[in-house]
Amino acid sequence: MVFRYPNGRSYINNEPSKQKTQATVIKKKPTEFGKRGMRFEEAINLSNEYYLNRGLAVIHKKPTPIQIVKVDYPRRSAAVIKEAYFSQASTTDYNGVYKGKYLDFEAKETQNKTSFPFRNIHEHQIKHMEVCIKQEGICFILLNFSSLNRCFFLAAEELIVLWKEQETTGKKSIPLTTIEQLGIEIEPGLAPQIPYLKAVDRYINGKKGAN
Amino acid sequence: MVFRYPNGRSYINNEPSKQKTQATVIKKKPTEFGKRGMRFEEAINLSNEYYLNRGLAVIHKKPTPIQIVKVDYPRRSAAVIKEAYFSQASTTDYNGVYKGKYLDFEAKETQNKTSFPFRNIHEHQIKHMEVCIKQEGICFILLNFSSLNRCFFLAAEELIVLWKEQETTGKKSIPLTTIEQLGIEIEPGLAPQIPYLKAVDRYINGKKGAN
Repeated sequence: MVFRYPNGRSYINNEPSKQKTQATVIKKKPTEFGKRGMRFEEAINLSNEYYLNRGLAVIHKKPTPIQIVKVDYPRRSAAVIKEAYFSQASTTDYNGVYKGKYLDFEAKETQNKTSFPFRNIHEHQIKHMEVCIKQEGICFILLNFSSLNRCFFLAAEELIVLWKEQETTGKKSIPLTTIEQLGIEIEPGLAPQIPYLKAVDRYINGKKGAN
Repeated sequence: MVFRYPNGRSYINNEPSKQKTQATVIKKKPTEFGKRGMRFEEAINLSNEYYLNRGLAVIHKKPTPIQIVKVDYPRRSAAVIKEAYFSQASTTDYNGVYKGKYLDFEAKETQNKTSFPFRNIHEHQIKHMEVCIKQEGICFILLNFSSLNRCFFLAAEELIVLWKEQETTGKKSIPLTTIEQLGIEIEPGLAPQIPYLKAVDRYINGKKGAN
């Protein structure tokens, strides 16, 4: 995990062009994704590009929040940050707009084969999803079981219930069987690699059906 | 302007708690806002907090995008960024959800008294607003004339037309009279300082009327 930021993000999300370099420099074997050695978040970022370029949705990953302490200004055009720290995000990583709907989600992966650890999800993300749902946003989490090469859409409504249960039961993870039952499986493709909008459509239609 | 990032943002937006400090250290007299010496973007951030705390909307400013080159890891818990650079944002500064609507906007201010310079607006922001509008997002710009202490909501649809005109006419700015005509003036208050959701409501209702 040494290659990761304290906030759990990896270099790989900040600057696609730098990814290979960084990964090499730090000699980190990337988590396999779809047997193409592609990391999950990179695959989502590329899927977002795909959706953006085809005018299907406008979803972006938010920059990693940084607290800047010291900046050198040899020239305004060449400011160099000399001291900065990673600060915790107050929201989820991804948001944007799709067919008039506000989408807001977090992407997480685990190498576990039978369950998804709650430690990957932070309370402030749960709270953020709760307030977004109140505003009629579409909130969810994309869960990738990298060892199984299986990816799921899990609606925030379901996640929040499970999260609150574990606060009382002390359960440390969500069983894969529960995710299979409550979530929508996303079949990885070539383009987009993670066609999560299909799951979003199913979720929205399901809600319509429920109403 | 030396206290500003090359991308035009100021320290003051990153870390509210640090604002005064930073401003002091850099001995920068803050742009007056509503005679309370408050900067425009700080006022918007506080207005967003107000809306968030009252469950009225969930709008956040995106972190400043940084490209990280060198990080020291004395301990995982204490990673220090030793070399990083400001990279250009590919979107607008603010987005979120309000009553089921996706809101996306940029906040800009000028000390000019008669017009708003186009140089404050970047082409990638125009392009971003165009694609968000296609997805039925509510896109706009909040313009603050700091010397006049007047603030306006200008719908992206109007801004885009003006932007495209200047590409041909070469006009360097938007006259205040045009903004008074096409925009919605926002009366600064105490809480929220910039009650921009009122303008958003007027805009949405106007669109309904138009349909």
